[in-house]
Amino acid sequence: MRPNVQAAKDALAHLDIETSDAAIRAKSRDFFWYSPVLKDRLDHIEADFVVSPKSEAEVIEVLRTCYEHDCPVTTRGAGTGNYGQAMPLAGGCVMHLQRMNAVKKIAPGRVVTEPGVLLKDLDAACKEHSGQEIRMFSSTWATATIGGFIAGGSGGVGSCTWGSLRDLGNIIRLRVVTMEAEPRVVEFRGEELARVSHAYGTNGIITEIEMPLAPAYDWVGMFIETDDFMDAARFAEELANEDGILIKLATVFEAPVAHDYFQRVKPYVSPGSNLVGLMVAPHSMDGFLTFLGRRPEAKLIYRSDDHAWARDPGPVFEYGWNHTTLRALKVDPSITYLQVRYGFPEHLNLIERMRNELSPEVLQHLEVLRENGKVMFAGLSLVKFTSEERLDEIVRLHEEAGAMIFNPHRYTLEEGGRQSVDDRQLAFKREADPKGLLNPGKMIAWDDPDWDYKAMYAYPKMQAAE
Amino acid sequence: MRPNVQAAKDALAHLDIETSDAAIRAKSRDFFWYSPVLKDRLDHIEADFVVSPKSEAEVIEVLRTCYEHDCPVTTRGAGTGNYGQAMPLAGGCVMHLQRMNAVKKIAPGRVVTEPGVLLKDLDAACKEHSGQEIRMFSSTWATATIGGFIAGGSGGVGSCTWGSLRDLGNIIRLRVVTMEAEPRVVEFRGEELARVSHAYGTNGIITEIEMPLAPAYDWVGMFIETDDFMDAARFAEELANEDGILIKLATVFEAPVAHDYFQRVKPYVSPGSNLVGLMVAPHSMDGFLTFLGRRPEAKLIYRSDDHAWARDPGPVFEYGWNHTTLRALKVDPSITYLQVRYGFPEHLNLIERMRNELSPEVLQHLEVLRENGKVMFAGLSLVKFTSEERLDEIVRLHEEAGAMIFNPHRYTLEEGGRQSVDDRQLAFKREADPKGLLNPGKMIAWDDPDWDYKAMYAYPKMQAAE
Repeated sequence: MRPNVQAAKDALAHLDIETSDAAIRAKSRDFFWYSPVLKDRLDHIEADFVVSPKSEAEVIEVLRTCYEHDCPVTTRGAGTGNYGQAMPLAGGCVMHLQRMNAVKKIAPGRVVTEPGVLLKDLDAACKEHSGQEIRMFSSTWATATIGGFIAGGSGGVGSCTWGSLRDLGNIIRLRVVTMEAEPRVVEFRGEELARVSHAYGTNGIITEIEMPLAPAYDWVGMFIETDDFMDAARFAEELANEDGILIKLATVFEAPVAHDYFQRVKPYVSPGSNLVGLMVAPHSMDGFLTFLGRRPEAKLIYRSDDHAWARDPGPVFEYGWNHTTLRALKVDPSITYLQVRYGFPEHLNLIERMRNELSPEVLQHLEVLRENGKVMFAGLSLVKFTSEERLDEIVRLHEEAGAMIFNPHRYTLEEGGRQSVDDRQLAFKREADPKGLLNPGKMIAWDDPDWDYKAMYAYPKMQAAE
Repeated sequence: MRPNVQAAKDALAHLDIETSDAAIRAKSRDFFWYSPVLKDRLDHIEADFVVSPKSEAEVIEVLRTCYEHDCPVTTRGAGTGNYGQAMPLAGGCVMHLQRMNAVKKIAPGRVVTEPGVLLKDLDAACKEHSGQEIRMFSSTWATATIGGFIAGGSGGVGSCTWGSLRDLGNIIRLRVVTMEAEPRVVEFRGEELARVSHAYGTNGIITEIEMPLAPAYDWVGMFIETDDFMDAARFAEELANEDGILIKLATVFEAPVAHDYFQRVKPYVSPGSNLVGLMVAPHSMDGFLTFLGRRPEAKLIYRSDDHAWARDPGPVFEYGWNHTTLRALKVDPSITYLQVRYGFPEHLNLIERMRNELSPEVLQHLEVLRENGKVMFAGLSLVKFTSEERLDEIVRLHEEAGAMIFNPHRYTLEEGGRQSVDDRQLAFKREADPKGLLNPGKMIAWDDPDWDYKAMYAYPKMQAAE
């Protein structure tokens, strides 16, 4: 099997193909550069061509043609992932789905959409139609696509109420195209969804999505300040445990994150300020202010519906999730991050312990998440990067303490996940991508079933640096 | 202070006053007869007259006039409470609020309404206006009023998601009239709400209510059957812990409740069938069926949107909460019930223990409830009544095991609640009802501050039986 990329490109010339080198390079890259480790490994990676299908029929044509010519296909939405999900490690074709952006049907509690619509445009359509919105979204809501979120994300703003994308009920249906001599179109529901959601497009291409909706409210964004970090963490947890107060976001930033990295917040905090960022439903504000009044240690410094800040800080969710890292990186390029799971019921103890051991080299940034019905925390800790060895040691310290790490300095599904093979995804890849051409190098189980995870996996067929 | 009831009645003659003895008797009674203990104590109780104000101005007039003549006023909605909440122990005036039934304003996430509207009519108005409904309601949705629910209830269908009425955010605002020489109108929010919600109208009369709303869906009602009771309890709990599956009801019935007491369900179950009753959002049905498919011990025997039952069983929620007791009572008049709190994390252990000790004398009926963010159970256990002594012993066995009882065989706030004085309610009664004329005999703290709760409280000024 020798790829004939040029033949594939020629055969697809009648589609929307990117020709300029600059555009090809731009569309070959995602946000892998959040990680100094991935930056070192992937910075040179570039596709040979970029195609933007406008329909499922064109997706099928791309996959059929590339199959015929053994040309790798890496599919992407906006490329806002941080794990290198959309980096075409073996070159070949990048298939860009942003032109498949039709919202097809909206009904009470559900929407059917093409994958390439931006999250913000999807929400705008649902709100306009019937006052609804998607249950959860990444902090890249303004620029990311729903397909990219499902194929490469795990949860986000809204997960404090609805849990994660992988939880039952948070995706209703996916329509998927396989990469075979004659691509098939299959529809997945229920147990089958796990085959292709969060699979980085390694075993099928999502062409239609049915998602549950929640009511859209004019969420009130707020910042709460505390002197003590654990007071801030407890505040966020206790608020999320108030069953009658509807929230969409509760995020906690250890000092001096707010002061040092949040430019528009800086004038209103000190280096010692810990911060809680919140989104609360307007009809829950009375309940929220009552909750706040019981906690003299917490001070409301900003609310989006009533403030006198000279410069509006923008949506509070654009301070949370991966935007925290982004803001820190812009100020201090030596900052990187980790993704941590602090599971119930040990979450607060674990957080306190890791902070005692590692602050300020590692600064706590927490996101309230529901898991199995319990409020717990995801950590997107900010790490002052010194060396890969030290970063690996910090990972090890977390794991030894019982805090699971989803390592964002790895580009494979397994290393960025639970470091084990997902048999359902692997089995479906055998069916749907027999030549192994879909997003090559991202599923270790396919390439090297005996891999032992002792060191970082290095895809042997990766495009060589010049 | 000697009541001059006739003078009060005469002064209010221009209002809507009930004159027939039969109507007065009917409107003097609530559902206290669920309890053989309350039936024994309260069956003779009757008001002297019943007035139905049509506006807040008329409520003020009733309260001013009755204050002047020292006439007791017991306020009620539909009278569907089971704790004797609306029984006029000292006679006098019953003020019936069902004519104050205007829904005043509906907006995203909230409704402003008068107290006398039926829950079902309130929901119909909210659904018609903008696809919304109230977060929770009693199983008497079709006949009960929102004011009665707030003044006399604690939670219900929807509490598996939203917690209880007393939780922050589940009531936004109450407008209240006091009973003084010149009644005042006050508005309560936040911490102040606890003064008058679930106070049985002992310290003020609610004339306007602002409540949060949730989206209205065409909830799918279902019955699930299991052979083993604890399998049913675990099924309900685990489902409620699925963050991505939206439910409005999860209720569990120990065998043979379904077979013996649910007439329309009986043909489809056996005496050994344990049952789970559910309401699931239609867009969560795929997730639900996936959840169900993982549990071969659970069998779906009915779904409201797709069934071939000869006779439709009606809304599943009319099998849950206090309707379970009602259905059992109709078949076997010797059945009564208890209200139990099985708190997280010991809930399942406690349930198993009480069942081992007391079944079948006490049959488990569980309702999933959220409390402090955790799924736990309220028990509305069915009790085969033999004597008051044995009933008290069963209460004691629960309390000794650590399962709190809200005793529905007592007519005072304290004994039906946490057996302690609510200082906020008492303090507001001192302000708002200086003569102690509002629903007399229901607040022990007012009548007998030194009461020790060792025996059932007996209101000394209760109307004598003929």
